[in-house]
Amino acid sequence: MNIGIFGTGMVGQQIAAALTAQGHSVMIGTRDVSKSLANTETTAMGMPGFGAWHKDHQNIQIGTFAQAATHGEILVNATSGAVSIEALTSAGANNLGSKILIDIANDLDFSKGMPPVTKTTDSTGSSVGEKIQAAFPNLKVVKTLNTMNAFIMVNANLVENGNSTVFINGNDSEAKKTVTGILESFGWKDIMDLGDITASRSVELLLPIWLRAWSVIGNTPFNFKIVR
Amino acid sequence: MNIGIFGTGMVGQQIAAALTAQGHSVMIGTRDVSKSLANTETTAMGMPGFGAWHKDHQNIQIGTFAQAATHGEILVNATSGAVSIEALTSAGANNLGSKILIDIANDLDFSKGMPPVTKTTDSTGSSVGEKIQAAFPNLKVVKTLNTMNAFIMVNANLVENGNSTVFINGNDSEAKKTVTGILESFGWKDIMDLGDITASRSVELLLPIWLRAWSVIGNTPFNFKIVR
Repeated sequence: MNIGIFGTGMVGQQIAAALTAQGHSVMIGTRDVSKSLANTETTAMGMPGFGAWHKDHQNIQIGTFAQAATHGEILVNATSGAVSIEALTSAGANNLGSKILIDIANDLDFSKGMPPVTKTTDSTGSSVGEKIQAAFPNLKVVKTLNTMNAFIMVNANLVENGNSTVFINGNDSEAKKTVTGILESFGWKDIMDLGDITASRSVELLLPIWLRAWSVIGNTPFNFKIVR
Repeated sequence: MNIGIFGTGMVGQQIAAALTAQGHSVMIGTRDVSKSLANTETTAMGMPGFGAWHKDHQNIQIGTFAQAATHGEILVNATSGAVSIEALTSAGANNLGSKILIDIANDLDFSKGMPPVTKTTDSTGSSVGEKIQAAFPNLKVVKTLNTMNAFIMVNANLVENGNSTVFINGNDSEAKKTVTGILESFGWKDIMDLGDITASRSVELLLPIWLRAWSVIGNTPFNFKIVR
């Protein structure tokens, strides 16, 4: 299948590599292709810059946001929540059409240092998922995977043999079924459907405790589980 | 030990009964003693009104907020987050002194129907825990137990033989040790210290997903676990 991914960061890289390894044709979209490819500096998280990473992943195409939107039958938003609407606007509503958009974004404000502050609140419309769905009503937005680190997203077995929970929500049941198939291909077994797109608030609001838990646990893989 | 509990709702009732069963001398504090005792109406949650409940728990004392504060060597805030500061002000800063206050409150707005909206955000000072600590700087506020239903709070084994997580945070290490002992007496094994009182935001922000999960799972006992 053709897949378009918005965002060149750690999340976009992991999702792109995992879907490519499964045989999908992946294009990563970015604001400025030559600038992204020129970025070879190691990130604050110790990850390679996009240009350095892409040298080892030449089978993954790179294009503008609009080109990635056109390429993908299924789209993935792996941009920072603060710029997601801007990136999707740049991709063009016509190119986005009524495709499935898997939204993994979190709206984190790093301007006051670490840990970043989550800007999502529990007020109606506050989440990135709801904002995207409202701005692009034809898109089938499915929120998922935003509650764990990027390596675990595409390999659930990194945490206790897959014994943790991934959440999913969105307005379109068929779109959620399609995305559930993709999640299963990443090893997810406990896929919890929280309902419509308004549930995006509840999963984006897991970031504050994720960041606290990370500061306590360190880099050992961990994840949430709803025990029942 | 003498324990003072603020709040006559389901949480106050469960904590009071559990600590009394352990041999502690418990007084529940309320705004208006005779009004609370006269309340025998079954609640929206299908629980007995406080007056009806207290008929079956006559060994638990009841008094004003100030009397409960004076009685307790350890205090418990089981009021609704929206009125916690008012209740504690009514208890009197002198009576609260520099005691340990276990804060279980969540700030939920029911005015727009179900599910209620969590008013806590990730902004500094936004949580009930931080607000109480700021208003009563001598209190040793320890936030815990606000992320599960009241029956599970006092009986961790209700969920998969105690295989789920309770969070704890606060500024005073000794106070957290004392409260950890109480949590252990309720069957908790996985007690995760998230740091100082500012971590209250992260645990109060679990309410939106708790409410979503509740609507999906129903009344089967469930809880969060940090799998690592």
